Amino acid sequence: MTAGIIGATGYAGAELVRLLAGHPEIRRLALASVSYEGDRIERVYPNFLGKVSAVLEKPEEVVAGSDLVFAALPHGVGEPYAKACAERGIPFIDISADFRFGEDEPTFAAWYGKPYVYPELRKFSVYGLPELNRDKIRALAAGGPVIVGNPGCYPTGASLGMFPALARGLAAPAGTVIVDAASGVTGGGREPSRSFHYPECADAVAPYKVGNHRHTPEISRNMLAMAARAAPEGAGVSGSGIPSLIFTPHLAPMNRGILSTIYIPLVDPWPRAPAAGAPRPPSKEIEEKNREIRELYAGFYREESFVRVLPEGTVAATNRVRQSNFCDISVHSDPAGTTLIIVTAIDNMVKGAAGQAIQNMNIIFGFDETAGLSAIPALF
Amino acid sequence: MTAGIIGATGYAGAELVRLLAGHPEIRRLALASVSYEGDRIERVYPNFLGKVSAVLEKPEEVVAGSDLVFAALPHGVGEPYAKACAERGIPFIDISADFRFGEDEPTFAAWYGKPYVYPELRKFSVYGLPELNRDKIRALAAGGPVIVGNPGCYPTGASLGMFPALARGLAAPAGTVIVDAASGVTGGGREPSRSFHYPECADAVAPYKVGNHRHTPEISRNMLAMAARAAPEGAGVSGSGIPSLIFTPHLAPMNRGILSTIYIPLVDPWPRAPAAGAPRPPSKEIEEKNREIRELYAGFYREESFVRVLPEGTVAATNRVRQSNFCDISVHSDPAGTTLIIVTAIDNMVKGAAGQAIQNMNIIFGFDETAGLSAIPALF
Amino acid sequence: MTAGIIGATGYAGAELVRLLAGHPEIRRLALASVSYEGDRIERVYPNFLGKVSAVLEKPEEVVAGSDLVFAALPHGVGEPYAKACAERGIPFIDISADFRFGEDEPTFAAWYGKPYVYPELRKFSVYGLPELNRDKIRALAAGGPVIVGNPGCYPTGASLGMFPALARGLAAPAGTVIVDAASGVTGGGREPSRSFHYPECADAVAPYKVGNHRHTPEISRNMLAMAARAAPEGAGVSGSGIPSLIFTPHLAPMNRGILSTIYIPLVDPWPRAPAAGAPRPPSKEIEEKNREIRELYAGFYREESFVRVLPEGTVAATNRVRQSNFCDISVHSDPAGTTLIIVTAIDNMVKGAAGQAIQNMNIIFGFDETAGLSAIPALF
Amino acid sequence: MTAGIIGATGYAGAELVRLLAGHPEIRRLALASVSYEGDRIERVYPNFLGKVSAVLEKPEEVVAGSDLVFAALPHGVGEPYAKACAERGIPFIDISADFRFGEDEPTFAAWYGKPYVYPELRKFSVYGLPELNRDKIRALAAGGPVIVGNPGCYPTGASLGMFPALARGLAAPAGTVIVDAASGVTGGGREPSRSFHYPECADAVAPYKVGNHRHTPEISRNMLAMAARAAPEGAGVSGSGIPSLIFTPHLAPMNRGILSTIYIPLVDPWPRAPAAGAPRPPSKEIEEKNREIRELYAGFYREESFVRVLPEGTVAATNRVRQSNFCDISVHSDPAGTTLIIVTAIDNMVKGAAGQAIQNMNIIFGFDETAGLSAIPALF
Repeated sequence: MTAGIIGATGYAGAELVRLLAGHPEIRRLALASVSYEGDRIERVYPNFLGKVSAVLEKPEEVVAGSDLVFAALPHGVGEPYAKACAERGIPFIDISADFRFGEDEPTFAAWYGKPYVYPELRKFSVYGLPELNRDKIRALAAGGPVIVGNPGCYPTGASLGMFPALARGLAAPAGTVIVDAASGVTGGGREPSRSFHYPECADAVAPYKVGNHRHTPEISRNMLAMAARAAPEGAGVSGSGIPSLIFTPHLAPMNRGILSTIYIPLVDPWPRAPAAGAPRPPSKEIEEKNREIRELYAGFYREESFVRVLPEGTVAATNRVRQSNFCDISVHSDPAGTTLIIVTAIDNMVKGAAGQAIQNMNIIFGFDETAGLSAIPALF
Repeated sequence: MTAGIIGATGYAGAELVRLLAGHPEIRRLALASVSYEGDRIERVYPNFLGKVSAVLEKPEEVVAGSDLVFAALPHGVGEPYAKACAERGIPFIDISADFRFGEDEPTFAAWYGKPYVYPELRKFSVYGLPELNRDKIRALAAGGPVIVGNPGCYPTGASLGMFPALARGLAAPAGTVIVDAASGVTGGGREPSRSFHYPECADAVAPYKVGNHRHTPEISRNMLAMAARAAPEGAGVSGSGIPSLIFTPHLAPMNRGILSTIYIPLVDPWPRAPAAGAPRPPSKEIEEKNREIRELYAGFYREESFVRVLPEGTVAATNRVRQSNFCDISVHSDPAGTTLIIVTAIDNMVKGAAGQAIQNMNIIFGFDETAGLSAIPALF
Repeated sequence: MTAGIIGATGYAGAELVRLLAGHPEIRRLALASVSYEGDRIERVYPNFLGKVSAVLEKPEEVVAGSDLVFAALPHGVGEPYAKACAERGIPFIDISADFRFGEDEPTFAAWYGKPYVYPELRKFSVYGLPELNRDKIRALAAGGPVIVGNPGCYPTGASLGMFPALARGLAAPAGTVIVDAASGVTGGGREPSRSFHYPECADAVAPYKVGNHRHTPEISRNMLAMAARAAPEGAGVSGSGIPSLIFTPHLAPMNRGILSTIYIPLVDPWPRAPAAGAPRPPSKEIEEKNREIRELYAGFYREESFVRVLPEGTVAATNRVRQSNFCDISVHSDPAGTTLIIVTAIDNMVKGAAGQAIQNMNIIFGFDETAGLSAIPALF
Repeated sequence: MTAGIIGATGYAGAELVRLLAGHPEIRRLALASVSYEGDRIERVYPNFLGKVSAVLEKPEEVVAGSDLVFAALPHGVGEPYAKACAERGIPFIDISADFRFGEDEPTFAAWYGKPYVYPELRKFSVYGLPELNRDKIRALAAGGPVIVGNPGCYPTGASLGMFPALARGLAAPAGTVIVDAASGVTGGGREPSRSFHYPECADAVAPYKVGNHRHTPEISRNMLAMAARAAPEGAGVSGSGIPSLIFTPHLAPMNRGILSTIYIPLVDPWPRAPAAGAPRPPSKEIEEKNREIRELYAGFYREESFVRVLPEGTVAATNRVRQSNFCDISVHSDPAGTTLIIVTAIDNMVKGAAGQAIQNMNIIFGFDETAGLSAIPALF
């Protein structure tokens, strides 16, 4: 089977190359890059020397010669290739935001500043968070062309951390969920800029786009879809039935990884120390309550290959999922008694981008969902 | 004037040495270290070579030969020196937690696992956050021996970020304030351990002590004191009158700095997009509201030398306060409309420890409050 | 097949676990750890959660239940297990220095401060640098028990960089080869210490053990063996027939990797700018000469799976071999005309330790030499 | 006194701003920036907020309104300002390479690719390495306009490490001195580029411009000048009378600092272990010899305020000179007996650029040479 990658020389594209080169079902890679057309990928990324030496082609050639196409392009430029793939009847897995919002073009337009190019393509598209939409992806793929809007990196870590709480009705609908997250610098892509210039971001932490990051509406949409699982069969869940969202991304001086600390207001607050007086360390009751929620989370994800609910005493950390497709989740005690604290860790380049795209490919083609994604997290 | 430092070879102690060596009012440093007694400080820290060459003495000698004493010791071991200083009538500025809780011994004991050694010393002690307690520090110093409980690093960044909101009654008393913070590794001190072993924490982010960090009750106490400023003269503020607190510290791969992202539920929520439908980028109204709060913050701190409320468009970042005694504060729009988002940045070793201790010394002795603390933040 | 690992919870041991867990010929891992006996490896290293859950046994149990044994122990403690393996007739691959010096016990004793425990074991032992000793390893393995002294991390990068020059007689025998190398901090192992405490080594570079690092005699021995390839069949090469060696290791703030910059005095100096006057940029002649040597290097290593001689214009860098078993080599122009400059990069944990040990296992058992070692270097 | 800075918004310029803002003799800063004319410096570098708020002017205005001018511009564009300053009779201190080569225009042209703009200005210019040329700087300044070619960062660390050896005749004239150095990323300046993009250089070490870095001829010139001190009064030293030079720069993942490991072939080799046989750890004789050289170095630099020859057992490291104008030097044993190993550490932004420029200003104006440069190296 031949996998095509358009935008193969960006970071997400190159990570796709690396992972697909070791995928047992992929025989050939067809790579496209506008900036490096005609070069060999191993000249652009010397780490590939002797391992992947494909010549970079035109996108059209890649579409024509592949059995499925991944696109790792900036937002707003990949739709023509999606269209061409749909016409050829082959799957198109898009790492940009273009297909993440489905029929909700107004929200896309409000945050990304442009309308859809071919709105009609959304009838073939699905939001590719496998843990949420595996059945939809399969169903679409069974029926003809499929376009996957691969989730954003932050939304992946944030949504997987909230899913059990929302789907089991733990979150207070009138409350506010806060996602405070930190990303490694590869999240900013390969193009040099002042923000990602080494001396400006090394040895330092800072937030960015506070209150207005584009991943906010994507997470919100997921919250709605997840909360809908808690509703009685057939009942709708409207935007007012779920907590509102605050999302604050930070840049941390590391290459890979996203750590999300998620605060979910409880519909049913835990037993807490009396309100009067200074706080006390968590009580036995709180630890017990915490254990129950951890078990609920573990049960919820029991069948998932890539979600690990960590045992008590182990905290999610980016260096425990490095280079892997895992999303680690730890569940914590809140001595204030009002709020569930969930921490998730993913590798932004794998589960947050290229790995999840391959997971979607595996689902579409009926491969083992872990094919090509079995790397054990690297120690360092 | 001779300044004494007990525990001079820990990180906070050595930072005191560095800063005091450049203080215009300090003629001599008297240094004590149990581990290195008899050595020269410049042998223990070769960066001091040719600059500071004092021989490390016994703590008792330092107490006897100094005009004031700083202690940078683990919790629970410095009280005898505080007592000796009080008896000699000289100020004692303590970087440990021993004197941060004043008369509230039960809270100290619950979180630090031991009772006070000399409870009676608390009648001379004050919590040394100058922006909150400058007058108390001055008053105590005027009346005899003074013991300063220098604030913890996290509580400094968290409390300064909340002070205007609490003192002006912006925070919803029934809500929960969330402080999500990241610290550089010097915050863990000089003693090697697995958590701070380079390969275990480099290129990675993780939280720790989620829901049970000892700085939680210290921040809570400050919230109470700050909210009291909002109350009508004479009215008390009880614990139930202020928001509860969730504090989550993270370890980030940097040497210095604490970044605190603080979520304060508003008593009077901002205008927001209609609840139905997906979130939208911040509206003009929200930006305007945000500007008002920024001005309130700027006005609140107008007289403070070390608090900088940043202009619109500039975000607090640890590398903009590096090596300085500044606390930078940025005020942000919350598109959800429910919550004020404040970001603060300090250098954990300076405003979070040694610098603030010197600021307290300056207040006690009537020096210019910025004496010895005028360093401009280093670019890198 | 069952692979045993003694010392499985140190960094090299854990990296063996990670790599062997993905090896196509290994069915089971038997792990031993003195410090964590009875625990599961996934509790000690949570990155293994759900992937490797073996219980840590006693070393004797591992020896008894394995088809070969790797030891990742401190120097001087593993010989009894080597003996037990030899008696059981199974291969023993030792990552410590105990078996790197073969019959030359005096050199081992002079640098490691202790004699051999069972000197007679050296008749079964071989220095496990496959590119140098592949035939010897195979021959020994064919004849009965084999003990491999797996090379040190620095000696691997240094020796592979010198091999073609020495074996082809390019180096001036009376000169001095200088190896100036920088290692990531994982090279210091898992035990916390001040040198590897994050704030002491982050954002900084420094050399250590200048002029007296234990890897010096190991590199020297390799130089002798490599130069012997240049001698006419049957002629001996004595220590005086090869260049002397200066080796300076540095600690660099990175997790993995060793970069070696190697200066080899040429027996036949290159054309250079006239000695009089200031230096000039490299001439065309020098670039041409350089190209010849690069081709010689490329030809020398043509059959090797793990050595990549980089094309002109590409410089060896630690982040191009990360997580892989490659040794990258770049060959450079010296405008002074006297000296060949070779740069090599390896991942200290893979080609410098665990990966090379597995390569040795593959040779011993006649597996494809790249089995379990086909990872493409990670981009970050 | 008013100090002018042209190119104030580059890294070297901004470091000049930071240091000069604390200089006791400077009353006012006049700043120029082509890119940010009309802005305030504190908007470009928010770390200056509340500390330095000068408006960025045109270069001509800065020249007209200053008592001396620093230029921190790219090579080849600053000569007109140098000319204007010479005409106004005020000192011009240039951080670019334009004035480092004095009358030797051919060498400048060969490496920098362009001729001088106003060659006649070299009659007023001097190479500003104070430890080498203090008297010349003073003499020039006494006689009228002076233009200082401030040394490059690498040449500063390399040359100070070699000076005593060359000036005392320890180096073998027919040998090759090797300078193997590593720089922090600020050395690459403020302009974003792929080489200095965080994910491309973090957690990694690599050399660059091997054999053809522009600092090579600058170091060579210094070697000649330093060796001339060893010649009998009046005797000349030609290029053939000094060792040739190989210089290899590396990029290390740190913000500040240059570490230079310098190998100097001894004219009079040390006692060494017999050539036959493997190397042994350094003998007592070698350690003794080493002590003598260390004392020679210490004596040589006794009067220098900014050079610290470290005691036995302490190795030069970039984090021991951080933020200071020191050059630390450690002297090491070479068990091979042929070569002196010297390690130097500087802060590339201070002694390697802005600090040294201020040191030159202090010399020109007769200020205390340490004025404004008394910062103690920061611990982290």
